[in-house]
Formats: sequence, structure tokens, C-alpha cells
Amino acid sequence: MSQSGLLSTAPGTVAEANAEAFARLDAADPWVVDVRLARDAIPGYTDRLVLTSGAPMPWTSYQGGQREALIGGALFEGLAASREEAIAGFADGSIQIGACHDYGAVGSLAGIYTASMPVFVVENRSHGNVGFCNFYEGKEPRRLNYGCYDEGVHQRLEHVNNVLAPVVGEAIRRQGGVALKPLIARALRMGDEVHSRNAAASVLFNREILPAVLDMVGEGFPGVRDSMLHLAENDYFFLRLSMAAAKATADAMVVPGSTLVSAMAFSCRGFAIKLAGLGDQWFEGPPPIHQGKLFAGHTDDEITWMGGESPITETIGLGGFAQACALSLQDYQGGSPEVMIERNMEMYRITHGENSTYRIPLFGFRGTPTAVDARKVLATGILPVMDVGLAGRDGGQIGAGVIRAPRECFEMAMTAFEQRYGAQ
Amino acid sequence: MSQSGLLSTAPGTVAEANAEAFARLDAADPWVVDVRLARDAIPGYTDRLVLTSGAPMPWTSYQGGQREALIGGALFEGLAASREEAIAGFADGSIQIGACHDYGAVGSLAGIYTASMPVFVVENRSHGNVGFCNFYEGKEPRRLNYGCYDEGVHQRLEHVNNVLAPVVGEAIRRQGGVALKPLIARALRMGDEVHSRNAAASVLFNREILPAVLDMVGEGFPGVRDSMLHLAENDYFFLRLSMAAAKATADAMVVPGSTLVSAMAFSCRGFAIKLAGLGDQWFEGPPPIHQGKLFAGHTDDEITWMGGESPITETIGLGGFAQACALSLQDYQGGSPEVMIERNMEMYRITHGENSTYRIPLFGFRGTPTAVDARKVLATGILPVMDVGLAGRDGGQIGAGVIRAPRECFEMAMTAFEQRYGAQ
Repeated sequence: MSQSGLLSTAPGTVAEANAEAFARLDAADPWVVDVRLARDAIPGYTDRLVLTSGAPMPWTSYQGGQREALIGGALFEGLAASREEAIAGFADGSIQIGACHDYGAVGSLAGIYTASMPVFVVENRSHGNVGFCNFYEGKEPRRLNYGCYDEGVHQRLEHVNNVLAPVVGEAIRRQGGVALKPLIARALRMGDEVHSRNAAASVLFNREILPAVLDMVGEGFPGVRDSMLHLAENDYFFLRLSMAAAKATADAMVVPGSTLVSAMAFSCRGFAIKLAGLGDQWFEGPPPIHQGKLFAGHTDDEITWMGGESPITETIGLGGFAQACALSLQDYQGGSPEVMIERNMEMYRITHGENSTYRIPLFGFRGTPTAVDARKVLATGILPVMDVGLAGRDGGQIGAGVIRAPRECFEMAMTAFEQRYGAQ
Repeated sequence: MSQSGLLSTAPGTVAEANAEAFARLDAADPWVVDVRLARDAIPGYTDRLVLTSGAPMPWTSYQGGQREALIGGALFEGLAASREEAIAGFADGSIQIGACHDYGAVGSLAGIYTASMPVFVVENRSHGNVGFCNFYEGKEPRRLNYGCYDEGVHQRLEHVNNVLAPVVGEAIRRQGGVALKPLIARALRMGDEVHSRNAAASVLFNREILPAVLDMVGEGFPGVRDSMLHLAENDYFFLRLSMAAAKATADAMVVPGSTLVSAMAFSCRGFAIKLAGLGDQWFEGPPPIHQGKLFAGHTDDEITWMGGESPITETIGLGGFAQACALSLQDYQGGSPEVMIERNMEMYRITHGENSTYRIPLFGFRGTPTAVDARKVLATGILPVMDVGLAGRDGGQIGAGVIRAPRECFEMAMTAFEQRYGAQ
């Protein structure tokens, strides 16, 4: 594999394929159009299926918080009456495990989906495909997607299912859907990068559904006041919408012969990527490299990996690739403005192009660096950067920080690419 | 007047007075607690009084758009049945003119107040004083405060009086008031400088009153839906709250012997400042120096001065003094991020200190440069910078830009200061 060859920009198959994959990403037009139960919304979903983050693995490979989260999901859904029954069910296949990405969905952290969970349905109106993401559980550090399951977690999930999701879904339908791309573009001017910071996007989304919400209050629709106050308190609410929008955007990128990255995700075992030119194949490396800031009372040795697919936002030029929009994150995840700006600039060296809609005020409204080219990662040694929440050994969120995708993923992906398409 | 003497930082009267004035500014705690009619809220307001921007002047000195706005105000309030009657009324004193600042109020552009207009009542809870500002008229370029008065302007003002203000006032009272300082601090992290950009602050304010609003909708309180949708569309709505908060903050600065600037404002004739150590005396210079970006179809020779007291925001370390928070303004008022950042940095050289609450993410959360010291303006030659809307010769807003206070104001102020307190 010749590195100079890999970086060739001469016209030809790869250049054309990458141009096409980038154009599809850049033209995406994600709209949230509905909230439905996973079993009704997601094609192929069955009642005994639990989805989780990362490349698919057998039950025995899941460990730590991600294993706990799967068990919690089975209990929440009533697929097992006890922890032991859940473990036995996963072991004998009577409770099935699926990878979120294989179902058009993306999961936050452990990324647990069960059949009765409501999901945002996001249509990419320029390509016709659909992406899904389930709901944010709330600010409480103990959450199912951080490997925790107890009475409090259960109640908060039930509240989402029974109160919040029906209200938000009804409002979205009454509005005829909400266009997410202009909303995200606007949030980038308001201090968000819509991965680790969603304060503006959340409040802008609330404003979008306000007309319907006011009608619903007037009509006595149940739970509206409570839901709107819940939304008003949760600056992270929008993350699930930016993830679903990003998934619906990235899934349109699949073009034979393209070396652009179409997915980045991790499980408790390691980080993995997909290439737009290699369809659904994952290329798995070790866990990501991290640098973070822990909440008071926690130490670095507690950090554990239990999955995460929110890097779908970085895949389409948001999150770490728009960090210079969200310098307030220096407080939350550590780092200085200078480091954040330099990191963001660095991403231009490994991406195919600049987003025509998502723009960075600090860079004179230059488009965000968009669509990682695996060839450029290998040629420059610069690894894609992502803003993430950090999970603790004993479950729960213990901090936030920046991770880098490991080089091994890109090496394996390009080896497979050359096996399929020949040396570039 | 020795310039080296003026910059002395040795302990003594001026240093102590400035420290006290700055401390009061920095400790201010503005809360909007009510919306009331000017005649009821503002001490000394009489039915035939029209307030306007800038240092007080006789009727014959008002010209152009500010004169038109005064006439429009008299007509709107029904103090005259015709333009001619209004002119005669101002001329014979049967319609009185007052300066907003003399009534604890601040005016946007021409800054017209009449007795029946609703005003925000903002209490500075750490000092006990109160500031006022009336309502934003809406996005339409033709507005009374831009020197226009016609049927459309009249209807929009009536709508504010009869629908919007009663709803917003009721919501504010039900919430027990809204603390503006933390809201402004948050907006600075979300791309606002709360003078020419209020997109985040407006939506955050709407969120603050949401619980009351939802109750009011449920109870069938009139005009709530309409008002909330109006607010949702008007990103500038919060400016009047930031102005009232700034006025309530700056008015606490009055300390004998202080050379800090406690007000900056202009009329159709010129720019004027007050010093914290010289009470209510204005020091008037020529009109401000401007650099702006005009809306399509307008030219530089159309720009006219018809007043403006929104520089009260710069007086307390916001607006142009927080421009590096709001780099999106490069689109609206022109300029590049580099120029905006440099301009913001420059303000540290003419200010007394750094705000302990209002902070700039791009500068590593350094406090905004706060409280212009007239001595430093003269010693450095750096003039305070302000973000403003630009009015056109024929009325209406024709653009936005940056202005600088003229040096003459500071020279006159320091001459008066030395006459009063002796050479420094």
C-alpha cells in the first residue's frame, strides 16, 4: 500500500466515488417527522430484540457496563424476570442482540434499544432513507445507556415512554415535521457542536414545536406542561436528534469505490469504522485514545468503555469537527480555546471537503471539515477527534472529554479496500 | 491636564472611587419584575411627556428622524390630532420632551416613550435602584424608534400595548421575576453580545417564562399563543431587557471622584457620556464615528443619526465589549472574526477591570472588559466601540455596524472632572 499513491487526487474511480459520497452527505436534508415505538418504526424489529452500540458481537464478548446495560434492557422490556434469566436468555439466543447501525439506528453510549422504546424517525428528504435514535434519559448520571439499571432508571425510562415521547411525537406530527439541518446550522452559531453541547439546539427545537405545544395545552392534551418543563431543563435533549440526523445523512454516503468514512462507533471491546465504498463491513481496532475531564471525586482509572455511536455526528462534520463553534466546552470536557481551535483546524487535513451548510463563525463561516478520508488519516497520521461523555467502571457518567479513533481501523479498512478495488 | 498624571494608579481618591464604582457595577443583580405603563412605573412621568434619546435638548434642536419620531410619539399617544398640532405643542411646551436617562429609562435609537407605553421594570437587587426600557416593535424596518410613523407602525405599537405586554407582564409576575444576569452570562456562551445579537437571550428568556405561559394558555388567558409566537420570531426582543438591565447596573456606579463612564448615548446632534464621579452631567461631542454594513439597496450617504441609548450595554461590558462572543455578527454588521477579536481585546486597555460574571469563551472565559476609564481613553487614544443598528435618512433601519465614541466627550468630561476635583 503506497502512501503517495493513496493520496493521489488524479481523476479516477476513487476521486469520483468520493466526490459523489461527499455530495450526498452535503446535500442531505434530515427532517424529524415522527416518534414511534422501535417495534413499529424500525424495519425488522422483533419483540425480543435488544440493540446495542458498536460492531455486532456474540453475547459472550460483551463485558462491563455494556453487558450490564444489555441485561438492564432485557429487564426493562420484561424479556426476563431476573438478572439470571436475562443472562440465560442472551446465552441461549431467546433474547436476541443486534447492532444499532444494522437497523438504521444509532445508540448513545451503550445504546440500548428495546421494542417498546420510542424512537425519533428522521427522514433524509434528499435521499429517501430514514435514521432512528431513541430518547435522552435525562441529566441523572445513572442511566441505562451508562450501564445502570435500578428503580430510578426504570421510572425515568417509563416517563419517557409514557409521557414525554407521546407529547413530543404529537407536536412533531402537528408541525408536519421539523427540518433539522437549518436548526443545527443555527445552533453552530449559538455555541453548540451538537455532540457534547446541545444547549442552543435543544432550546431552538423546543421553539420549533411551540405552536403545536400551545395548541395541545389549550386542548388539555395530557402531560404537555410536564414534558415542556422537562425539555426546558435538559440541554442534552437534542443530541438524540442530531445523532438521528447524522445517521440519516451518513447512510446516504454508500458509494462503491469511496474511501470516505461513513460510520464511527465503539463497543466495550473497541472502536470500529465503515467506509462508504465497503458497505456494511466494520473495521475494528482497539478502544479509542482519550483525554478528558472527570467530574469531582472521580479518577482516570475509573474510565471504562461501554460503547458509543454518537461519533456519527463527527462522521458528518459536527461534534469534534465543529469544536471551534463550542468553546464553552472547555469547562465541561477540559482543554483551552487554543487547543480546541487547533484540533478543529487539524481535521481539515483528513477530510474530503467543507460542509456547505454547517459553518464555523470563528473561521469566517468556513464550512466544517467534513467526511474523513481514510487515505488522508494514514498519510498524515492525524486521527479523527470526537467529543464524548465518559462512563465509569461502576456505571454512570463520570466526566467528558475528547477521544481519537485508533489508526488500526483505518489501516484495516484500506487493506480491505485495496483487496476489493485493487491498489490505488 | 497631565496625561501621565491621569493614568496614575497610586492609591488615592480616584483609584478608590473607581474601585468602588466598578465593584457596584460588577455586583449588580438586575431582575425584571414587572411590565407596567410608563405613566404608572416611571417616577415623575406625566401624560403629556414624550421621552427621547440623548442628552436633553430644546425642541428646536431636534432634527431629521429624531424630530419625526417625537412627532410620531405625540400622534401615537393622541397628544395631537395632526402633525402640525404636534409641532405646535412641542414648540409651546404643551407637549413636553424629556431625556430618557433622566427618568431611569433608556431608549433604542430615537428612543420614544409615551405615557401609555408599557415598560419593563428592572430592579437591581444588590443596589435597590430600578431601570426601565420599553418594548421592541418587531422586525419590520419601519418603526417609531427609527423615525417612522404610519398606520403599520401604529398598529404594531398598539399590538405591543394591548396584547404582547399584558401577556409578558403577567408571565413575569407569575414567575416572581426573572434574574437577567445569569441569563445574559449564559447568552454570552451562546453567541450573543446582547446588543446587536440577542438570538440566544431571547429564546432563553422565553424559556424562563414558559411555566407561567403554559399555565396561562391552560386558563385561556387572552393573546398568549399569539404573543409567544411573536416572541419566537423576534430574535431582537431581549435587547430591551439587556438595556434595562444595563441601565439598572450603570446607575449604581455613581460615586464621587470616579473617572469611570456611567452612560454613553447619542441624539441626532451628537454623542454624550456621563462620568460616575460627575452625576447627571452630560459631556457632549460630535456624532459617533461609524463603520457598518448596509442592507441591500442602501448607500453610505443615507446613514443618519436619530439617537441611541443602547450603548448602555457597552457601558457595563457587553455589546462591542463582548464582541468576541458573537462572531456571527460578521454577517450582519460586517467585519471579520480577526477584526472583531482585536477590537474586543483593545477594550481591555481602556477599562477599569474584568467582569466577574460576563465572560468570553474564546478568551478562556476571561471576564469582559468592563467600565471605561475616561483617563485611559485619553491616554491611549482608543475609543470605546459599540455595536448598533444604522438608521436611514428617510427613516427605518438600513443596516448595522460598529461606532466609536468621539474623543471630545472624554476630553470635556476630564476637564470638568479636574475643575471639580482638581488635577489628578
